[in-house]
Amino acid sequence: MNYADRLSAAVERCGNPVLVGLDPRLKSLPAGLVAATGDETPAQQAAAYEEFCRGVIDVVASLVPTVKPQAAFFEQLGPDGMVALGRVIRYASEKGLLVILDGKRNDIGSTAVAYAEGILGSGDQSPWGADALTVSPYLGDDSLRPFVEVAVRREAGIYVLVKTSNPGGAMLQDLRADGKHLYEHVGGFVNQLAQESLGQCGYGAVGAVVGATWPEQLAELRAAMPQTWFLVPGFGSQGGTAADVAGAFDERGLGAIVNNSRGILFAYRREPYAERFGEARWQEAVEAATRDMIDRLATDTPAGRLGKS
Amino acid sequence: MNYADRLSAAVERCGNPVLVGLDPRLKSLPAGLVAATGDETPAQQAAAYEEFCRGVIDVVASLVPTVKPQAAFFEQLGPDGMVALGRVIRYASEKGLLVILDGKRNDIGSTAVAYAEGILGSGDQSPWGADALTVSPYLGDDSLRPFVEVAVRREAGIYVLVKTSNPGGAMLQDLRADGKHLYEHVGGFVNQLAQESLGQCGYGAVGAVVGATWPEQLAELRAAMPQTWFLVPGFGSQGGTAADVAGAFDERGLGAIVNNSRGILFAYRREPYAERFGEARWQEAVEAATRDMIDRLATDTPAGRLGKS
Repeated sequence: MNYADRLSAAVERCGNPVLVGLDPRLKSLPAGLVAATGDETPAQQAAAYEEFCRGVIDVVASLVPTVKPQAAFFEQLGPDGMVALGRVIRYASEKGLLVILDGKRNDIGSTAVAYAEGILGSGDQSPWGADALTVSPYLGDDSLRPFVEVAVRREAGIYVLVKTSNPGGAMLQDLRADGKHLYEHVGGFVNQLAQESLGQCGYGAVGAVVGATWPEQLAELRAAMPQTWFLVPGFGSQGGTAADVAGAFDERGLGAIVNNSRGILFAYRREPYAERFGEARWQEAVEAATRDMIDRLATDTPAGRLGKS
Repeated sequence: MNYADRLSAAVERCGNPVLVGLDPRLKSLPAGLVAATGDETPAQQAAAYEEFCRGVIDVVASLVPTVKPQAAFFEQLGPDGMVALGRVIRYASEKGLLVILDGKRNDIGSTAVAYAEGILGSGDQSPWGADALTVSPYLGDDSLRPFVEVAVRREAGIYVLVKTSNPGGAMLQDLRADGKHLYEHVGGFVNQLAQESLGQCGYGAVGAVVGATWPEQLAELRAAMPQTWFLVPGFGSQGGTAADVAGAFDERGLGAIVNNSRGILFAYRREPYAERFGEARWQEAVEAATRDMIDRLATDTPAGRLGKS
């Protein structure tokens, strides 16, 4: 089944579009968990990351459609971290979650094929086993097409950076050329790729990363890119609210998945969850924060219509 | 010592600016080498990549200043490939080569810090131990600065994609905004970062990737970015000649390193090396192809002045 249809089905089944970002950071992990694995060597740190991510996955697998491991935090630990990343992807996949590897990869020609073939495709289709990958567009159309080709063949997807959530993203993305912002140029090409990889749900296997921190552009791009799934970062810690992301959805409540990483993973460190659960019950804090996000999106966005038809 | 000064010293010592790209591809490896490791599992394939790259490094360590492992080919093999990549970087570093990891990484804020801290810094400074990393600019200034900060602190460097060698690179990079091409906007900012990380050689720790396939832009950018080292891909297999890259150098023969991957690694598969050496003597073909490239650059570019002052 086309990746867009797999994602639509998972979002409808769960009744929410929450994407839990798996961004382990050593200093934020529960102390008891780190004490058990040790934290001196990269191998011990990687074991802590794996243990923590498995604990998060155990909680969210029954609640949300998809998770997004951030490659950088695993790569930070060297090869040991990458081994842990591979295990985390497999575990999430076994638990029925769609897995988006956030690697922001890209390269040219046959090198792009190497990334695509290594990463895209669940189960035995690829060594990493991810359902989707984030991809950077600076290298242009001939660097993106190899990813699309492999993704379509393996029922996987990609998300191309279009309008990122960080303030500095505006430096290049907001430049105007030929009467359009650079992000609109990228968005137009991405929607063309989405049209070429269309599933039955009306969306394609090629999505776009569009930040929650730019609500106006989010709604504009939704209108301009009707066949493109949006991966929306910037909710929570970066300041984006449910109202800010409302424009990312279509009238069915489909078309966008909204990421939250720190706000869910490390909920035990901040109120109101810190007082209710404390460090030892960090998994209950993950669950409560996830449920609260689901509720906020259901109240303030078209995602409230999911699973009710 | 500042990375730019370490690179200048290495280029002067070797008397050439050749950058050997370590792009292992299973189908192109010498059959005898693959037979010894096996090629059925990712672990066996990774062993073949490591063995091959060590063999290349053994030959080129006494000839050239620097090598560039391509992360994609190792990542293609899954976690096993990344373990092999870590070993290849260490081995090249032990042999005295400066190592540029070609990962084209980037992300925002603290996630960019994770990549930078994990990858940049030789020896015990980082788990990967690379001297430099290629970085993508689409995410803007606040995504690049964390890399610069870590690089300067650890005497490492970065190379930002400015004008890439592939035909499709023009799609976004050649768009004109505010009277300048996008690649000129990026180039201007990169040279500012180079000025802020300046070594005694007159270049900074922040370099730029500028393709050999665009000789005019290469010379223009050399003039516009006087403090920026250029990493020049596209020589050889992609069609760039020594004359095409001449404009990338300053009058001392410094300022550019010129990459060749397939043309050196798999020289044994093509003439005139195939007939002279054959598959069994593939390392001699690597040496001959490297020496030929050194000679061509010395004849047709200012690199001929290196090591003669």
